[in-house]
Amino acid sequence: MLTKNDIINYFQGLQDSICAQLEAADGEGRFQEDAWQRAEGGGGRTRVIQGRHIAKGGVNFSAVHGPMPEKVSRALGLEPGHFLATGVSIVLHPASPMVPIIHMNVRYFEVQPTGKTEEEPTWWFGGGIDLTPHYVDTADARYFHRELKSVCDAHHPDYYPRFKQWADDYFYLKHRQETRGIGGIFFDRLNGEDGFSKESRLAFVRDVGESFAPLYLHFLNRHKDVPYGERELSWQGLRRGRYVEFNLVWDKGTKFGLDTEGRTESILMSLPPVANWKYDHHPEEGSSEALSLSLLRKGIDWVNYTGS
Amino acid sequence: MLTKNDIINYFQGLQDSICAQLEAADGEGRFQEDAWQRAEGGGGRTRVIQGRHIAKGGVNFSAVHGPMPEKVSRALGLEPGHFLATGVSIVLHPASPMVPIIHMNVRYFEVQPTGKTEEEPTWWFGGGIDLTPHYVDTADARYFHRELKSVCDAHHPDYYPRFKQWADDYFYLKHRQETRGIGGIFFDRLNGEDGFSKESRLAFVRDVGESFAPLYLHFLNRHKDVPYGERELSWQGLRRGRYVEFNLVWDKGTKFGLDTEGRTESILMSLPPVANWKYDHHPEEGSSEALSLSLLRKGIDWVNYTGS
Repeated sequence: MLTKNDIINYFQGLQDSICAQLEAADGEGRFQEDAWQRAEGGGGRTRVIQGRHIAKGGVNFSAVHGPMPEKVSRALGLEPGHFLATGVSIVLHPASPMVPIIHMNVRYFEVQPTGKTEEEPTWWFGGGIDLTPHYVDTADARYFHRELKSVCDAHHPDYYPRFKQWADDYFYLKHRQETRGIGGIFFDRLNGEDGFSKESRLAFVRDVGESFAPLYLHFLNRHKDVPYGERELSWQGLRRGRYVEFNLVWDKGTKFGLDTEGRTESILMSLPPVANWKYDHHPEEGSSEALSLSLLRKGIDWVNYTGS
Repeated sequence: MLTKNDIINYFQGLQDSICAQLEAADGEGRFQEDAWQRAEGGGGRTRVIQGRHIAKGGVNFSAVHGPMPEKVSRALGLEPGHFLATGVSIVLHPASPMVPIIHMNVRYFEVQPTGKTEEEPTWWFGGGIDLTPHYVDTADARYFHRELKSVCDAHHPDYYPRFKQWADDYFYLKHRQETRGIGGIFFDRLNGEDGFSKESRLAFVRDVGESFAPLYLHFLNRHKDVPYGERELSWQGLRRGRYVEFNLVWDKGTKFGLDTEGRTESILMSLPPVANWKYDHHPEEGSSEALSLSLLRKGIDWVNYTGS
């Protein structure tokens, strides 16, 4: 029987394992840890790296619990109770514009409604992985989506198509009519409906979590030695600006965290070290920057993509 | 009798006058204009400068009208009708970290409720000016607030205290527990209540609009030749990051514009050319950066400030 502590311990171990793999791949950077506690219950371990290949990266673990704040129960449409939220959240901003930005999150939430301590708590898993290349490499995009599809397919044939579309819809800058990157998978409220057990949901989330490091190292190793210059750095700055726009304007998790007095520095570790804005910038027609922009849209079937 | 067109023409002239004064002060930069039209009615003139002293500045005029979008009537608590929104909006990011960032907005809104063409429309003015120094100079802050107070006092004794507090409350980064800068004045829904005429409200808004250029030139001339180095530029990058956080997370106008499909490039001209984020950065105790941070809080009586 799966307990809360099993899940918490699993996420904590996942953080350790990913940090070790990323340090080995970076070769120079070491994670700095800030352990923090939340007055109302629980806490976390925020880990940040500023390395050779990873310019600014955060790998956060947290497990917070206590009486559910009213804002949270209202936002989630839940009755009052005692909650637990735990998970691992990652954003890596590479030094090189030729290497993609990546984001991963896996999380578990449960709430025991007040006065109903005999009942099973309401629970669900959520998470996802998505990739934000400064320059879209279609072979990378196909590889990324095929790997995610095979992780999903091992658990349920509906997972990949549903979660791929969910990511397209979620990681979308409406005011730019651009997706943040080439998507990936996004899922939420994976609970015990339709005969799924908590064990089977966790097994899926584990596979997602464990696919993260090998996937990212594949892209890092493929692109880290590709030469670049001022032009690519300038484009990277603008794309990082878009990343900031998505996270601060549209990302529900960020807004919710800032609004409910989450730990600001852990939430905003997702922001890049530098971002640029130029008024009304348009890349030159036919350039690799313009091509990348044209591929930042919803609904591209990357698994079967045959363009170059 | 004041007509819509009088107000629109006034704002358009204010844009011209401010742009001319800023170009003269910058000495090198020239405003580039993008005239744009809105499919449903009206349009604007977005003007952007990238100069010697003003690294990135926008001085926008717009006058948009048409059937009021449902999102707008809901947000403003108004019955459906035909609306007009017009105004001038400015953000200037100076090149030097020793010169403050400034923001000014003056605007007029009216709506003629559907089927009530005989009635006077619902109308109001809004706006404000606020200053965001990278390094807080207490003499500047006192000067700024005294000038604003004298603009306000010429119209109503309540204006300055009310609008100063409104600015403190509005330009606040809740997640940082910091004000954006040293505040200024902010006001909204100045209508015909309490015996104010539309003419008297416009007279106040004109005085605010016309105080902008002399105020900013005072700060620009006072600080533009102050030497600075890497340390000041690095601090400027972090403060610009905070400016981005405020505008994208908390500023109601920005959110509303992006959400109602306003012209993205005109709205986001407020963002700096470059912004930086460092995880959990704290300035050295006793440094000028730490002193500046300590002065970014609500409720400082700058008019009577006697500290150094």
